[in-house]
Amino acid sequence: MQHIVSHLPVPPNYHDGDPTMFEPFWRGPIGESATLVIPGWQTMSYFSDVGNLCWFLEPSFEREVRRLHRLVGNAAVEGYHVLVGTGSSQLFQAALYALAPPTADTPLSVVSTTPFYSMYPPLTDFLSSGLYRWAGDANTFDGDDYIEVVCSPSNPDGSIREAVLKSKSGKDIHDLAYYWPQYTPITQMLAHDIMLFTVSKCTGHAGTRIGWALVKDKEVAQKMSKFMEQSTIGVCKDAQLRAAKVLGAVTDGYEHQLATAAGGDANLLFHYARRKMAHRWCALRAAVAASGIFSLPNEVAGFCTFTKDTVTSNPAFAWLRCEKQEVEDLESFLRENKIITRSGTKFGADQKVVRISMVDTDEAFGIFVNRLAAIK
Amino acid sequence: MQHIVSHLPVPPNYHDGDPTMFEPFWRGPIGESATLVIPGWQTMSYFSDVGNLCWFLEPSFEREVRRLHRLVGNAAVEGYHVLVGTGSSQLFQAALYALAPPTADTPLSVVSTTPFYSMYPPLTDFLSSGLYRWAGDANTFDGDDYIEVVCSPSNPDGSIREAVLKSKSGKDIHDLAYYWPQYTPITQMLAHDIMLFTVSKCTGHAGTRIGWALVKDKEVAQKMSKFMEQSTIGVCKDAQLRAAKVLGAVTDGYEHQLATAAGGDANLLFHYARRKMAHRWCALRAAVAASGIFSLPNEVAGFCTFTKDTVTSNPAFAWLRCEKQEVEDLESFLRENKIITRSGTKFGADQKVVRISMVDTDEAFGIFVNRLAAIK
Repeated sequence: MQHIVSHLPVPPNYHDGDPTMFEPFWRGPIGESATLVIPGWQTMSYFSDVGNLCWFLEPSFEREVRRLHRLVGNAAVEGYHVLVGTGSSQLFQAALYALAPPTADTPLSVVSTTPFYSMYPPLTDFLSSGLYRWAGDANTFDGDDYIEVVCSPSNPDGSIREAVLKSKSGKDIHDLAYYWPQYTPITQMLAHDIMLFTVSKCTGHAGTRIGWALVKDKEVAQKMSKFMEQSTIGVCKDAQLRAAKVLGAVTDGYEHQLATAAGGDANLLFHYARRKMAHRWCALRAAVAASGIFSLPNEVAGFCTFTKDTVTSNPAFAWLRCEKQEVEDLESFLRENKIITRSGTKFGADQKVVRISMVDTDEAFGIFVNRLAAIK
Repeated sequence: MQHIVSHLPVPPNYHDGDPTMFEPFWRGPIGESATLVIPGWQTMSYFSDVGNLCWFLEPSFEREVRRLHRLVGNAAVEGYHVLVGTGSSQLFQAALYALAPPTADTPLSVVSTTPFYSMYPPLTDFLSSGLYRWAGDANTFDGDDYIEVVCSPSNPDGSIREAVLKSKSGKDIHDLAYYWPQYTPITQMLAHDIMLFTVSKCTGHAGTRIGWALVKDKEVAQKMSKFMEQSTIGVCKDAQLRAAKVLGAVTDGYEHQLATAAGGDANLLFHYARRKMAHRWCALRAAVAASGIFSLPNEVAGFCTFTKDTVTSNPAFAWLRCEKQEVEDLESFLRENKIITRSGTKFGADQKVVRISMVDTDEAFGIFVNRLAAIK
């Protein structure tokens, strides 16, 4: 229960984005087929595939990544290199490392449209690298050389984003962690140069720490792979095998459903999760209406090419604003009301807005909406 | 077969240290008990132990780390914080981050006695951090502020090392990856400020990418934990559960043997592995004698407090020198003879010496010694 104040010293940066919401799905019939068994003698070598430029990539993981994208249609895989990382935050750093010139006099500027994901600045700057440096809001950036990080749907506000800078020498990283059908209608198959994904947000397996990148350019893919080699000598094989099982179970669930024409969504992760997210957004909007002092971004709808229907988006986070004049610092105000959120200031925005997790456990989410509705 | 030239594009930095030698042990009776089973719904949260300063540390992994050290007696655990990392190379970087002042004008110097582990310079410098910078051989370093990395037994030459610099404001990191009974007699229980270990070298599970640190100071432990939080949002839980199973199986093997007084070493990892290492060192010394143009460091012996007998050390790497005048570049010379090694120049030493892996598969090791013996 990360949402609500407890006595435990919860770590500051991740307390409000733990995607534990999907656990009940994985306790169902599909979960059984995702069970991983590894004998004591397996996965001992550093190497997974010495013929691959990403030599620590487990072939079964790569296969399931490609299979899932083909099923969902959210990103192109033909002609792309697949890279694995210890979560997408490692891949983000790998992309910075690959795109920044190794011998420049000044660090390359890294920018993103405000509000940006609160971890981009510390992930860029925590080692004071001479290769790249956080430079803030992309909209106010002036220059030709940069890396623009495009998070779409956006963490924190759920909006669909495109690159705002257009210089020929500029580079983009597309963070697509939330571009899955439970969060947003899949409106097109994206085909950007570098696209980042993570099992944390796709299936809810955050503890497995596995992300992947789809990378068009071979040289960039090689440099990103080199980053994982330097930083952690590759990526845990057991975790890759686990992620392969989990992703495979998701795709199998859909293929089996098509074959048997059975009803219900107990085997269909994205349908199950979308229904749950939509239910939560209804409950949140009702609580906001009951309170009367808050506002949320307008609902956005679109035709989803995966589910073949028109649906609203259900972002993983709510970007909640307070309309009450006297509340200056919304994070503190909500904390007094026993609700933990993350202040807009961490995302390059103001103090009157906060980010709220929509992917917590049922119990914590229920307590949260009740507390929110009661605030006047 | 990393030892011998093949047609595959083997990655440059790890081709010759893959500890696949232990696989047959794990196919034996102990391996059975180390089998890991993870259902689809487990280990989903980011969090392992929110009350611990290392909030992503799995309690069962910490328990087995402490239990194994108590069994072997190689390092003190009472009063120490246990941290987990994605291999010990991540923990090495975490220690640099924790020990370097965050706001100094110039990067802190990182030094180690020559020959030093070839990965220390790139691990320190690959992001051009403003916090720390590789400064070479500890013996020639002049200054009061530094981080000295002490690798003991030493990779590459197997010697027992102590810190050579003694400034009060200097800091030490002890890399004890090879301080296990199969490689060297355990002569004392070490109790340094920061001690690094890895399952790769202890049990041979390199692919699981799990290392651990024993850290005395709470603030340093917190900063190291913060590094893992920033760099990879913690460490894969599945890998930690796997490592806990594997380390637990090693300790169980010894406890069970004591209880039943059964003979043989099929259940005793360190005895099994020491016997195998000793056998390989005999074979290597015989090959060196047969060839006549090489030399090895002298054998070192000591009383092992774990096995309670006097034994020679059996380093994981052989530091092979060529005595033939006309061979300038030993790595190239051996490559012409279809033997892959790593040149002394990568370790801060000269071209007439190379590092050779002693932990490869039986097949590759057998081919290697035969080829070496035939060189005149």
